[in-house]
Amino acid sequence: MILDRHSSVPLRVQVTDYIIEKIRNGEWTVGTRLPSQRVLSEKLRVNRSTVIVAFEELAAQGLVEGRRGGGTIVVNNTWGLMAKRETRGWETYVESGQYKPNLPMIRKINEAEFYPNIIRMGTGELSRDLLPSGGFADLFREVPPKLLSLGYQEPKGDLQLREQISLHLKRIGITADPSSILIVSGALQALQLISNGLLDRGSALLLEKPSYLYSVHVFQSSGMRFVSLPMDAEGLQPGKLADYKKKYHGTIVYTIPSFHNPTGILMTEKRRRQLLSVCEQERLPIIEDDVYRDLWLDAPPPSALKSMDQSGNVLYIGSLSKVLSPGLRIGWIVGPQPVIDRLADIKMQSDYGSSSLSQWAAGEFLRTGLYERQVSFVRKQLKKRRDDLIDLLDTYFSDIGRWRIPQGGFYIWLNMIPTIDPRHLFEQALKKGVLLNPGVLYDRSARQYLRLSYAYASQKEMEKAIRALRELVIKSGK
Amino acid sequence: MILDRHSSVPLRVQVTDYIIEKIRNGEWTVGTRLPSQRVLSEKLRVNRSTVIVAFEELAAQGLVEGRRGGGTIVVNNTWGLMAKRETRGWETYVESGQYKPNLPMIRKINEAEFYPNIIRMGTGELSRDLLPSGGFADLFREVPPKLLSLGYQEPKGDLQLREQISLHLKRIGITADPSSILIVSGALQALQLISNGLLDRGSALLLEKPSYLYSVHVFQSSGMRFVSLPMDAEGLQPGKLADYKKKYHGTIVYTIPSFHNPTGILMTEKRRRQLLSVCEQERLPIIEDDVYRDLWLDAPPPSALKSMDQSGNVLYIGSLSKVLSPGLRIGWIVGPQPVIDRLADIKMQSDYGSSSLSQWAAGEFLRTGLYERQVSFVRKQLKKRRDDLIDLLDTYFSDIGRWRIPQGGFYIWLNMIPTIDPRHLFEQALKKGVLLNPGVLYDRSARQYLRLSYAYASQKEMEKAIRALRELVIKSGK
Repeated sequence: MILDRHSSVPLRVQVTDYIIEKIRNGEWTVGTRLPSQRVLSEKLRVNRSTVIVAFEELAAQGLVEGRRGGGTIVVNNTWGLMAKRETRGWETYVESGQYKPNLPMIRKINEAEFYPNIIRMGTGELSRDLLPSGGFADLFREVPPKLLSLGYQEPKGDLQLREQISLHLKRIGITADPSSILIVSGALQALQLISNGLLDRGSALLLEKPSYLYSVHVFQSSGMRFVSLPMDAEGLQPGKLADYKKKYHGTIVYTIPSFHNPTGILMTEKRRRQLLSVCEQERLPIIEDDVYRDLWLDAPPPSALKSMDQSGNVLYIGSLSKVLSPGLRIGWIVGPQPVIDRLADIKMQSDYGSSSLSQWAAGEFLRTGLYERQVSFVRKQLKKRRDDLIDLLDTYFSDIGRWRIPQGGFYIWLNMIPTIDPRHLFEQALKKGVLLNPGVLYDRSARQYLRLSYAYASQKEMEKAIRALRELVIKSGK
Repeated sequence: MILDRHSSVPLRVQVTDYIIEKIRNGEWTVGTRLPSQRVLSEKLRVNRSTVIVAFEELAAQGLVEGRRGGGTIVVNNTWGLMAKRETRGWETYVESGQYKPNLPMIRKINEAEFYPNIIRMGTGELSRDLLPSGGFADLFREVPPKLLSLGYQEPKGDLQLREQISLHLKRIGITADPSSILIVSGALQALQLISNGLLDRGSALLLEKPSYLYSVHVFQSSGMRFVSLPMDAEGLQPGKLADYKKKYHGTIVYTIPSFHNPTGILMTEKRRRQLLSVCEQERLPIIEDDVYRDLWLDAPPPSALKSMDQSGNVLYIGSLSKVLSPGLRIGWIVGPQPVIDRLADIKMQSDYGSSSLSQWAAGEFLRTGLYERQVSFVRKQLKKRRDDLIDLLDTYFSDIGRWRIPQGGFYIWLNMIPTIDPRHLFEQALKKGVLLNPGVLYDRSARQYLRLSYAYASQKEMEKAIRALRELVIKSGK
């Protein structure tokens, strides 16, 4: 490792990290004597004083100990308990018994997103220039100070925001009283609450394959099993639902019917009705993850499952993260009131509610119509970006890839024809400054796929990335 | 039940709630035929159309079904799975095997806090007039719009905020690099992350008795056991630590050394050193919950355990909720970097980070010195309020109660001399418009105790409440 002298990370921290990494990856086990300060300072080409400070920091962290008579050794710090927790709960992650989570790759992605100049080709997030920072400033300039509630909120969240969400839902055909709405800190937390509050350990969740849900560990870490359902161009195929429910003791269905993550597929209205009817018959409740609904590009999507649901069978998840700002961390769950009450109770027990400031801002965005304006703006911009990315694929991938044109959302599910090694491709691309979301994150057998996003990178960046990707795919493909 | 015609809650919703409550509490079980619309409308004195709308709502929620030939019956709605989850995980809550959580009382408190004109005598939250809403408005008026980051944050949280917290900690003697700090959505989430990320099911947590921690379910719901340690006027007594560690396989210590919740006790410096030394010897890590530190009223508290810790043995929790605004939902965990990395990873998997808006506001509060001004203001006000409450107790409780004068924080741990029934007292007080936090929430044997707070109610309200409380204690006491 060579230290990065141009980094904003101080050298002493880089030295500390270097040593921690060696300990963590097992290279330097407990009892190992560290190289001397002189040797390390020469090897890393830093002042000896920098190494001394790093050693002190490590000692303060309980990771190393200076020994009388010289030498510094790795000690068994009390937090050693942490290390063995690396895979906590994941061992129960079964999708035919031996699926290993892609934690290291996801962690790498989370980190690499903050590298300077990295091109994020898979990111499920709007580019900064599509976010309404002017809108926020406007909003705050008009804050009547006394209206800003800074205390803890009611368990279900700020009433004004819930009323606004109720109106917002009405526009898409969903009738929901504010008392049937729970504010959450984003859709991921919604899933966490459902997992903790409604489902038993050992429950089986029936879901599309591939799915975004395979890349997060919220259900698996509560000891739930995943049972995969096939998809086609019309969305999830409900044919096997009844069968799988019996065979695998399926407890609940999870689906992203509109602009599915990662495939971009839009479930047809016919398919929606089929799904609802099978689930009603089988008494299978449904979690409808509908966070991309407003981001249609060509025509509005068919009605939400929730709006067609006559039997209180659907828990509906929405969010402002995809349209307005992920940083607000505001989403919602809509469902039968007793379920919402139960989830609100769990929410209070886990974080005492979401940020009042965020709730207030979200409510104002909806109330003032800024949200609607933002949606129109984003829709227009995203459409252009989607067309750009499709053009680039036509130019650079027509001979080595296949894809569908998404009608909304952020993603293109690229099927690469030459046989590739996903990890190798990921790493090679990263070296070229391109951050990818490999398909295996969403389906471990989707080795030939990438989730491409047109929401984050600029046209220029996309072009650079797709060119580089072509080269890599051809080179590494067999 | 008589409906509240002056409530802002629509009558149809009140009728729906009335029926749901009957179903939920088991009065009307599955298969029960509801009273006819006519009977109900007469009984509740509402229009029949209101009842019809309520029935429709209940049908849409899957709770009731109209039958051909008339009558509406309670059906087994799909979310029936929810009901049986009422005690999820709690069964593993053992503190001698059969402790039952006070969930219903806590839920009642959470609800009653929003009753109009209720006097909240136990609330762990600053009164609204002590919160800096002017400060927020000022802050927002000066926002340079481009600086507001609205994307997802780095896993550990906004770097600027972490830098500010690092400086803030330095002032109280804690050296922590921003890379050793994790931003969380309040102290409760900190505990949740530690519980999920570092500790095994079946771990035993050694903690003070009484403790705030008995009133939340974050550790118990992950299957952890509690082992109680005795306290005296100097704080936790570490004498039995080694013994209990062996006997109960204690894994970790949890303590609130400064202005303990609920007793208000301040751990002496001597006791702190003892605790640290025993824990170091026993290789027992410590969670130091220090959210009240800045709220000293007479003199600054002794140094934090974290600042005296030479071996990376302490995980330190801080928060802005007690001084600045609970609604911001901003707190932090400080610890050895590998532990913080691990917790950051878990945090990303549970909510993708805290609100950027809140993080930005928190950072600005610290950076601009508004936080320090707010602390001085709150300190002055709280001191006055504490003195007021002590005066009231001197006047009304000198013959029927005992208490210590707290040197900081929010709480007085009132020991009532006449034998009382905590639940009865709680309910009688609520009828008189006074909301209490009974001692049993924090220690099931503390039936003779109340956690009084001088942070929320005004002087007038406190006087009214303490007078009423005297009457109730004398009347119900034997």
